Amino acid sequence: MTHQSRQTRACLLSLGGGRPGSSVDLQNMEDSGPDRRGSVFAGLVGASQVLGLVSVVITGVWMGHYRGGFAWDGSAREFNLHPLCMVLGLVLLHGDAILVYRVFSNEAKKKVKLLHGTIHLLALITSIVGVVAVFDFHSASLIPHLYSLHSWGGLTTLILFSSQWVMGLLFFLFPGASSWLRATYLPIHVFCGLTLLVMAIGTSLLGITEKLLFSIESSYPQFTPEGVLANILGVFLVLFGVLLCYLVTREEYRRPPNPEEEALSVHFKTLTEGGAPATP
Amino acid sequence: MTHQSRQTRACLLSLGGGRPGSSVDLQNMEDSGPDRRGSVFAGLVGASQVLGLVSVVITGVWMGHYRGGFAWDGSAREFNLHPLCMVLGLVLLHGDAILVYRVFSNEAKKKVKLLHGTIHLLALITSIVGVVAVFDFHSASLIPHLYSLHSWGGLTTLILFSSQWVMGLLFFLFPGASSWLRATYLPIHVFCGLTLLVMAIGTSLLGITEKLLFSIESSYPQFTPEGVLANILGVFLVLFGVLLCYLVTREEYRRPPNPEEEALSVHFKTLTEGGAPATP
Repeated sequence: MTHQSRQTRACLLSLGGGRPGSSVDLQNMEDSGPDRRGSVFAGLVGASQVLGLVSVVITGVWMGHYRGGFAWDGSAREFNLHPLCMVLGLVLLHGDAILVYRVFSNEAKKKVKLLHGTIHLLALITSIVGVVAVFDFHSASLIPHLYSLHSWGGLTTLILFSSQWVMGLLFFLFPGASSWLRATYLPIHVFCGLTLLVMAIGTSLLGITEKLLFSIESSYPQFTPEGVLANILGVFLVLFGVLLCYLVTREEYRRPPNPEEEALSVHFKTLTEGGAPATP
Repeated sequence: MTHQSRQTRACLLSLGGGRPGSSVDLQNMEDSGPDRRGSVFAGLVGASQVLGLVSVVITGVWMGHYRGGFAWDGSAREFNLHPLCMVLGLVLLHGDAILVYRVFSNEAKKKVKLLHGTIHLLALITSIVGVVAVFDFHSASLIPHLYSLHSWGGLTTLILFSSQWVMGLLFFLFPGASSWLRATYLPIHVFCGLTLLVMAIGTSLLGITEKLLFSIESSYPQFTPEGVLANILGVFLVLFGVLLCYLVTREEYRRPPNPEEEALSVHFKTLTEGGAPATP
């Protein structure tokens, strides 16, 4: 370990008593122990996956059992593919693509980036199939397109999601972007990703409400099983979103800082910005 | 400035080249200059206030002009108070109560805490009036209570919001809680507060969709002015939420760390946990 990195690590440790949840809170992380952190983290990740998968299953049961099943023929059965694809693509796969950075925090960053981009691509393809299904159904049934708040939210989310994917590719996978540019864009990319996940979940809830009022408006107030099932789907989607946001924003679940990287970064900054290295 | 605090500040500055947006990114904050940071911040805060206020006005116009106005007589006009109170209380006031920590970041913390708690109390009272209005209307019209996803989301949000207010009072305003307990609870309080704001906005969007489908289901697909106005209300509420979350989570808009406080904190940690102070 170089003198610079030892000094950096000493600083990180001496600042461990600062604001809890700080990115330099290394000593607290070490005190709480990897096992305890690991088991809580694993439990939360497991819970998120159960919530996400059960949400997809409930959507399938709702559309398959209560709404007549699936087909690709412009009928209501083609519409039924829409909620299934959106919950699978724009919620579950989208959320899991974000989560890989926390789950595989000890793997090489390059591999995790590729996994992140690939799952996002699957999410995008699944979502596009879902959107085509609803446009097809509207056209065949002579229902106007894009009049509802749900459709405004959904299309905006999908367009921004596609842009975010392209921007991620350009900034983080292609070698052209400088370290400074990547570092500047990273917090924006993370904020937009979480915002889009929340928007996808919010739009799904609007879709659930629309579908229930179009299909069972008269029996919905009598707590009919279909209505209760769809409400429970909404609750599960919200819980999935809350868990994902918690896992991603909690400082202790971030990739652990690498003292050698920090030292290099400090050295680079000192050289490029003309500042004097900190002296004890 | 003590030796300890000088050392802490030197550490903070030497770490300024680390992860961008880090809580120790003091040098970057100084480089970007207070004026530039101040004008962007002021612009974003101003935009959030315009969005929030216009949302309340649109809700008032929607209910006042298109839905027959307001009264407290168990009729649909009593229902009309429900969206107005919820958007004013659980969205605008709730968001502004959170924002005071960023807007008044140079004021004494005690004063800002009192303001935060007081605005939250106003939000709570306004929201309770709004919820009573809809329960009254449902009872008078023999409509079952709490069957919809909107009502499940709304009641959950209000109950958790009330609990969050009481917990905030106990932890941060009463003198009983230790510094350690406050510091441990703070990130959870912040996360829950933002989550509840997002839930309040999501629930509002569900309410907009429900109201439109109950009132103008047949003309909504023809882009009738009432439907478009209500959709725009939804868009404004989402933008308000995104701006609020951005302003609160962006590291450079946090209260600036106080080197004297950091030094005390390090000293306290060294004393209580038996660790040796970091030496160069």
